[in-house]
Amino acid sequence: MEYELWYWDGIPGRGEFVRLALEGAGIPYVERARGPDVDDNALVDDMARDRPHPPFAPPYLVAGQLTIAQTANILLFLGPRLKLVPDDEASRLWAHQLQLTIADLVTEIHDSHHPIASGLYYEEQKEEAARRAADLTAERLPKFLGYFEAVLERNPDSDAYAVGAALSYVDLSLFQIVAGLRYAFPKAMRRLAPGHPRLLALHDLVAAEPRIAAYLASRRRLAFNQSGIFRHYAALDQ
Amino acid sequence: MEYELWYWDGIPGRGEFVRLALEGAGIPYVERARGPDVDDNALVDDMARDRPHPPFAPPYLVAGQLTIAQTANILLFLGPRLKLVPDDEASRLWAHQLQLTIADLVTEIHDSHHPIASGLYYEEQKEEAARRAADLTAERLPKFLGYFEAVLERNPDSDAYAVGAALSYVDLSLFQIVAGLRYAFPKAMRRLAPGHPRLLALHDLVAAEPRIAAYLASRRRLAFNQSGIFRHYAALDQ
Repeated sequence: MEYELWYWDGIPGRGEFVRLALEGAGIPYVERARGPDVDDNALVDDMARDRPHPPFAPPYLVAGQLTIAQTANILLFLGPRLKLVPDDEASRLWAHQLQLTIADLVTEIHDSHHPIASGLYYEEQKEEAARRAADLTAERLPKFLGYFEAVLERNPDSDAYAVGAALSYVDLSLFQIVAGLRYAFPKAMRRLAPGHPRLLALHDLVAAEPRIAAYLASRRRLAFNQSGIFRHYAALDQ
Repeated sequence: MEYELWYWDGIPGRGEFVRLALEGAGIPYVERARGPDVDDNALVDDMARDRPHPPFAPPYLVAGQLTIAQTANILLFLGPRLKLVPDDEASRLWAHQLQLTIADLVTEIHDSHHPIASGLYYEEQKEEAARRAADLTAERLPKFLGYFEAVLERNPDSDAYAVGAALSYVDLSLFQIVAGLRYAFPKAMRRLAPGHPRLLALHDLVAAEPRIAAYLASRRRLAFNQSGIFRHYAALDQ
């Protein structure tokens, strides 16, 4: 069985958290809505299909008979299969809890440039975005990043990883959070760096994992840009 | 083992989705941060404890040695134990996927009165809230409620429930969504009612379940009010 990933072409977005897990485990997968031979409407058409378990939004993963949506749910499903989470129930719930907190942070980062409506352009809500982004960088990022720093510090099984004694999908997602925030909010991240040494070390550790390093150097890895979740607007990084 | 629920006193909030599952299954639980004998700082003090698996935010559930946070994660854990989800993995992933989509909707509802910062009062962001709430009622509620209506329509195992052939925690949460939206946005919900007959019928079906009916009539059920996720401001329901 081959995993099939459905996600918007052209942006890393939420699909990237799934890609990093598949790439980190060295598991082949097919991008069904990306590539030169894919019709531009493939994803929209597939979303419109009459299926018993419809996704509300991409990303979704097709694995044999299953179609699974919601990023954290996909990782809950893939984690044991890719050996990217410990075996016991307590650790799996803990990893998933962290992934859901990452999902909350991702939403807050998205909403910092789209605080009014995801259906409007940034330019139609940039005054509100300036206010929300100021709160994000001053209040919310310190709270979330401080939380993940404490999680790394308190992990009794490792000095480096978030869950258990080995690399998990949570670590791969935290790498993407740090990378994305550095792209979107370079000034804020320079200010926050000294207080979060474990989180930044985890970023570097993940980037140096051989499979991830090869992936990051490949054309499969999409660059951050001005259409995704992590966007850089100088006005929002004061 | 007795389940212990930690959540802010005085608001239904996200804790209510957990309460409805426990009440719907007839399982006793202890509210650790609510009641006349509970210190006002109990929750804040407990959150500050140095534990290996800290919650980022309430609600969290203590079940023996486990402390589990994130509403959907708590329901993922409780579902099989309370017999509020089918046994097979595909159904459990599907139920959890729906619960995560409900969680996304809950965040959007919250942000309609707090689009700029959760740390500010509504009165400090009410102009932005008017814009965001207009988008919520015109664009987002039809999209989310239409999705859940389609889920009910397409369920091959039931004409009434969302997942499988019996009551699940997803149904209990959808009840709370409809009830909360009717409190917060009565005009919008009257407008949306004709297009969502299955969802409204599910609300009534859940409300009439004997254990839920008894709970709703009890003092354990907290009324919606102006401090929670579902708030009624006439200016936001135009």
